[in-house]
Formats: sequence, structure tokens, C-alpha cells
Amino acid sequence: MAKQNAFYAQSGGVTAVINASAAGVIETAREHKDKIGKVYAGRNGIIGALTEDLIDTGKDSAAAIARLKTTPSGAFGSCRYKLKGFEENRAQYERLIEVFKAHNIGYFFYNGGGDSADTCLKVSQISGKLGYPITAVHVPKTVDNDLPITDTCPGFGSVAKYVATSIREAAFDVASMAKTSTKVFVLEVMGRHAGWITAACGLAAEQEGDAPHILLFPEVPFDEAKFLAKVEKTVLEQGYCVIGVSEGLRNADGTFLAESGLKDAFGHAQLGGVAPVIANLVKDKLKYKYHWAVADYLQRAARHIASKTDVAQAYAVGKAAVEFALQGHNAVMPAIKRLSDKPYKWKIEMAKLEDVANKEKFMPRNFIRADGFHITAKCRAYLSPLIAGEDYPPFKNGMPDYVVLKNVAVAKKLKTDFKI
Amino acid sequence: MAKQNAFYAQSGGVTAVINASAAGVIETAREHKDKIGKVYAGRNGIIGALTEDLIDTGKDSAAAIARLKTTPSGAFGSCRYKLKGFEENRAQYERLIEVFKAHNIGYFFYNGGGDSADTCLKVSQISGKLGYPITAVHVPKTVDNDLPITDTCPGFGSVAKYVATSIREAAFDVASMAKTSTKVFVLEVMGRHAGWITAACGLAAEQEGDAPHILLFPEVPFDEAKFLAKVEKTVLEQGYCVIGVSEGLRNADGTFLAESGLKDAFGHAQLGGVAPVIANLVKDKLKYKYHWAVADYLQRAARHIASKTDVAQAYAVGKAAVEFALQGHNAVMPAIKRLSDKPYKWKIEMAKLEDVANKEKFMPRNFIRADGFHITAKCRAYLSPLIAGEDYPPFKNGMPDYVVLKNVAVAKKLKTDFKI
Repeated sequence: MAKQNAFYAQSGGVTAVINASAAGVIETAREHKDKIGKVYAGRNGIIGALTEDLIDTGKDSAAAIARLKTTPSGAFGSCRYKLKGFEENRAQYERLIEVFKAHNIGYFFYNGGGDSADTCLKVSQISGKLGYPITAVHVPKTVDNDLPITDTCPGFGSVAKYVATSIREAAFDVASMAKTSTKVFVLEVMGRHAGWITAACGLAAEQEGDAPHILLFPEVPFDEAKFLAKVEKTVLEQGYCVIGVSEGLRNADGTFLAESGLKDAFGHAQLGGVAPVIANLVKDKLKYKYHWAVADYLQRAARHIASKTDVAQAYAVGKAAVEFALQGHNAVMPAIKRLSDKPYKWKIEMAKLEDVANKEKFMPRNFIRADGFHITAKCRAYLSPLIAGEDYPPFKNGMPDYVVLKNVAVAKKLKTDFKI
Repeated sequence: MAKQNAFYAQSGGVTAVINASAAGVIETAREHKDKIGKVYAGRNGIIGALTEDLIDTGKDSAAAIARLKTTPSGAFGSCRYKLKGFEENRAQYERLIEVFKAHNIGYFFYNGGGDSADTCLKVSQISGKLGYPITAVHVPKTVDNDLPITDTCPGFGSVAKYVATSIREAAFDVASMAKTSTKVFVLEVMGRHAGWITAACGLAAEQEGDAPHILLFPEVPFDEAKFLAKVEKTVLEQGYCVIGVSEGLRNADGTFLAESGLKDAFGHAQLGGVAPVIANLVKDKLKYKYHWAVADYLQRAARHIASKTDVAQAYAVGKAAVEFALQGHNAVMPAIKRLSDKPYKWKIEMAKLEDVANKEKFMPRNFIRADGFHITAKCRAYLSPLIAGEDYPPFKNGMPDYVVLKNVAVAKKLKTDFKI
């Protein structure tokens, strides 16, 4: 097989470890210079391919690429941009192939979640039709942990470690203050459709009575009376109550609590968080003093407290993607297979993209306790290994020392622009 | 001097390192068993003394006490409870002395901020009047960094490191997403009256153009037009804009932005954070997609990313407090004196409590840039050493392994209860 270049892009919401996958792809490609020439990264994801805005990763040193392993976010820029179906917008795919042809790109590595897997599958299918076959491999990533087949999704383990650590720390704080001040603390975490991250908060509670005392999952419709009774009981028994709540918590009628009722001075609906809604409810009905926090991007960017397991898996899927491509596998994705819980053992195996694309993995109902307010032992056994180990980034001047790549542009070869 | 027992209590909002001060007090007292008998801790601060609810710290092992150095929050419970003036409530002081007498307490160590320094001073002044002199030493602590004389207040450096790290990480995330998604990110931090913590966010910006791009201090009245113009300019130039805002940001008329205009479904004023107010303003006026986070207790409890300098200083003031007391100094406080910026050198010196109590240290005006939106080089030189060094806690099962002490109660000797 003649030597060809590779294209790599990051897609969707970024994570603390997606750059570790990038390092896995780039370093492994560099080990196979006989087969892979340049690794071009798309600036801002697939948009970089469509607009021929390519980055020559070869302009960054081995040392700089290695530092991606300890740098959060997407070093080449990501995007929220979903390719339409082939029939709907054939021009997009033709343009991709045109760019790939112009730059002799024979490998397509796409690092993202479910939507991106679908894009990757489409690219693998249509490239042949358009007379320029390329090998397309998906690299899994999503803090939502909702890709099928793979045991977990790189990015999730580090968010899980961050929220479990943070809610434990805040709980220690509240426990100290509860006698005369704050009695209820609410932490809002990500996960609009699935409660994986909310469940991870539960890892902080190792014994009966430990915080967090209540978890509010998007899978469990909010029952105000039952919730308030549980808060009151917890405060009476423990002296305080710590609550982890999903941004996606809904009322029984399906509306998001975060959207329910808040209006600004002009009467506009206020898209506030759900944490203040819950906290105010507790104050109105139970008169407890409260504090609340919304972690938002802090949770998915917190490379300083990343899970060592997550970092290792993120790197491994990047590396395996290149190896699969070099073995001639097309339309596949490296997936993590769990071999045992304790000790946690895992390996990389190959999943077909057609089994991954457009399928969501939901949290099993038996991961949520019967009363709906906490996780089960089964859930703990699943989650616990994913946050194992610390993998601190280097620090400089008291701050994490993250790399900013040069991101040198590749000279354009096409005469035409492409409107996105 | 006859051997006497010591009383130690934690007061006000807790921090990531106040327990390190506790370890400093207890370990140093244990080294002087010839002079100090037991160290009794007040359960829930001064309330423990008033209600004779004392903890015998001697029931916890040396290993457990050592673990306080890596455990956030107040291990013995804190309280928000201000003693009234001697004339207003002489009974409170008489009760304190009664409890101290009953338990042969000759040393009073009070670990807190400005209000606590005042209490400590009063105890030192009136104990003689009431016929039972005790040696009262204040141990400084406050994330607000507003105690006078001391170079910094233990607890602040770790919050500073947390917010600077977190806003840098979130900024990397936003930079990745900005092309097609989030362009503006707002992080709300503590500091209702002074902008020290807001200023610490500025440490993440080391070069021109680095995030955070805008800081909103409580010292600078909010100017909506000027702010929006700055956001727009930043997005045009950098592609995105990251903002650190103090919970205490005020409008020109003195009202808090966090309280301005938000109403819940029932028309009640909503005590939301200031971050969503700022974020919504940006969206309404500039149409940029935004995200926001409110760190709240996460910032002051984040022992996992504590400043090594802060931990060392917290321990040192605890240790020095005992040494000062043993040297016979009364109504004093160990203060941190800065000897040089680079390298940062400091030592402990002795401050008189009358110079500390009821005085607040505000941020110098020349620490805020002329346009009001960032810190100056002078401010950076002051802040930078305070976040230097990492001091990670031990981890177990992927989580920080914080100690929970036995907190064994001392048998009561008094027949009377005391209503607080």
C-alpha cells in the first residue's frame, strides 16, 4: 500500500482527556512513517476538512505532542457541526473527498461521540462511491458515557472522579457549618439525558449516612413531596444534607426543572441551573439555609484531577485506531472491554461502527436504588474502577502547565472555498 | 507555671487548610506535655465552650491528627456565632470562664477571621476581670484574605490556586468550542466585600490575550455598556471571552447584581448567583452562546488542589500560636511576614490582637488595572507565591482519603446548661 497521509479531528464537547487520544493517534502514526506520511488535524473538527483548514501536526515536536497527554480540551479546536445525510447534502461529502484527494489523505480518524460515529460511518461508506476510498476509524470520546459496546467512554472517568471528589469535599465543608449555618448543599452536574455523572457523585458515599445523601437522576421524574421528606429526614438524622442533581432533572410532565418558572426582570424565561431551583425549594418549604454550586465546564475540563485509568484508556483508543487502520480495518472503533471488576482489567477490542452509530447506552435501571435517590452496589462496582488512579499534569508557577500547540496551517491546494 | 489544659476552636467559614492549623496547634501542644495537658476542642466552635461540649483531642492518635494536614473543612465543627460585647452579654463571658475553670483550661486558641479575632481579644481582656486569667492567642484563617498585618490569611492561597486552575481549564475548553458553540464563559467566585479571590482568577492569564479576559471586582461598580463593549471586542479578537466575577459585584447604585430582578414562579425575588445574570446579559445583548459555573463551597473545600505554601503557612500559624502562648504572650496572633517576592520568603512574626480585631484589609487600588477589568503586575507579584506548590492528599479507591476524627466528648463537670 502506498504511503498516505492521515486526517484527525475532534468533535463535539471536549473532555479532560481527548487530547490524550490525539497523542495516541499522532505518536502511533509517527511510529509508522513507512505507511503514514503526515497527520493533518482539522482545525475546529470536521469544519477544518470542509474548509481545507488543515493543521500540520508534524510542525509540533515530539515533546509538545507528548504534553497533549496532560492537557485538557481539544488542542485543534472542536465543533458542534453534524454532517447531513448523504442524500440531503451530497456536496458536503464530495467536498470532503476533494480535500482528502488534494492532500493525499487515506486515513480518517474521527474523535467524538455518537453523532461523530455516524459521520465516520458515512465517510467510510461514501468514499468508495465517490471514487476515493479511505480508511475511516472512529475514536470514542464523550463525558456522557453513552456509546454502546465500549465499557466506558474516554472522558467520563475523569468527570466522574472530579464530581465524586468535589461533592465529598463540599460535604465535609457543610458538615462543619451545619450546626449554625448551611444545612443543605446542592451540586449540579452534567448529563442531560443520562444519569452517569450524577451516579458518579454517589461514589463519595462509601458508608451508610455518608454524603451525598440524595441523588436526583434525569431517569427519575422529580417528586417534590418525596424529595422534601427525604431532605428533612436526612437533616434530622445527619445534621445536614448533600444533594447531587443532574442538569437534566425533569418534572413528571417532562419539563426540565431548570426551565421551570424563573423569569428575569423583563419577564423572559431564565435558563438558570437546576441547582438554584432545588435549593430555593428547600429553603421555601423547609427553611434550611443552603448553598449550591454549578460545576459546568469545570467538571469536564478538570485535567488536574483526571482519572489515571481514563487517561490510559483515552490514549489506548487513539493508538488502537491507528493500528486498526494499518491492519486495513475500515468503519470500526476501538472499544474498551472489561475483563474483571476487581482488580479492574480491560483490553481494547474492535467494534463495528454500524453497531455504534446512532445507538445510545442508557444507565441500567438496576444501577439506581429502588427509592430512586442513590446508586446500587452494582453501579458502584461498575463505576469505581473508572476513577482509579491519579495522573497529575506538570505545574509551573503554581498552575497546571498545559500545552498550546503551534497549529501551523497546511497550504491550501484547492481553488474553491466551501461555505459551511 | 502549673500545667494547664488548652482549648482550641474553629470559627466561621471553613477552608481547605484550617485543619492544618489544628494539626499545628495539637502536635505542638503534644510536644510540650510538661506545660500543656489536654487539648480540648470546642464542638462547633465557641458554642462547644459555651455549652461545655468539649472534644478530647487526645483520644485521636498521632496518625489521625497528622491526617488533618491533608483534610479540608473543620474537623471539630465550626460555627457562625458572634459573641456580643462584654457589656451586652456579660453572662456569655462568665459562662466561658466557668467552663474553662471547670476543665482547668489556661490556653485559648481561636482559629478564625476578623470577628473571631475580636472575640479572642475580648476573652483575653475579660478573663482577668473575672478572676481566671487565661492566655488567648488567635490563629488566623479566612479565604477572604482580609485580616490586617499578616501578608496573607491561611485558606486564601488554596482558594486562589483552585480558581486560577479552574478558570484556566474552563478557558481551554471554551477556546476549543468557540468556533461553532460557546463563546462566553463566566465563573462566579467568592468574596462578597473584597476582590482577592476574583483577582486570583487573573493568575491564569500570563500573557496578553490569555484567559480570563475580564474580571469583575466588587470594588468596581458594574458598568454594563463598558462591560458589553469589552466582551464584544474580546470575542472579535480572541474568538471567545472568559470572565471571572465576584459574587459581590454591585451596580452603581450599590445593589448586588445577584439580587437584581430574578423572580421565581411565585414572584419571589430569587437569590440566584451573579454568573447567570452576567451570562444572560451577554446573551440578550450580544447573542453569544454562553456557559457559566458557580464554584461556591467547591472552591474553599478543594483540598485536592491546595497550595503547598498555604498548607505550610496554615500549619506554621497553628504551631506558632502554641509557642507564643508558652512564651507567655497574651492577646496576640501569629502573622505571616513576607521577606521577599522572588523567591518567596516568609517568616512568622507576632501581631497584637488589638491591631488585628475589627480591621479589614482591602485590596489596594493599584492591584486593579486602570480599566477596572483585570489585575496589575503588582497584584500578580503579590498573589503568585501564594499558590506555589502542590500538596496532594492521599487517595484511596480513586478518591481523596480524608480523616474523620473520633471526636470523643469530655465528661461534663458543670451542673447547668447554657442556652445559646
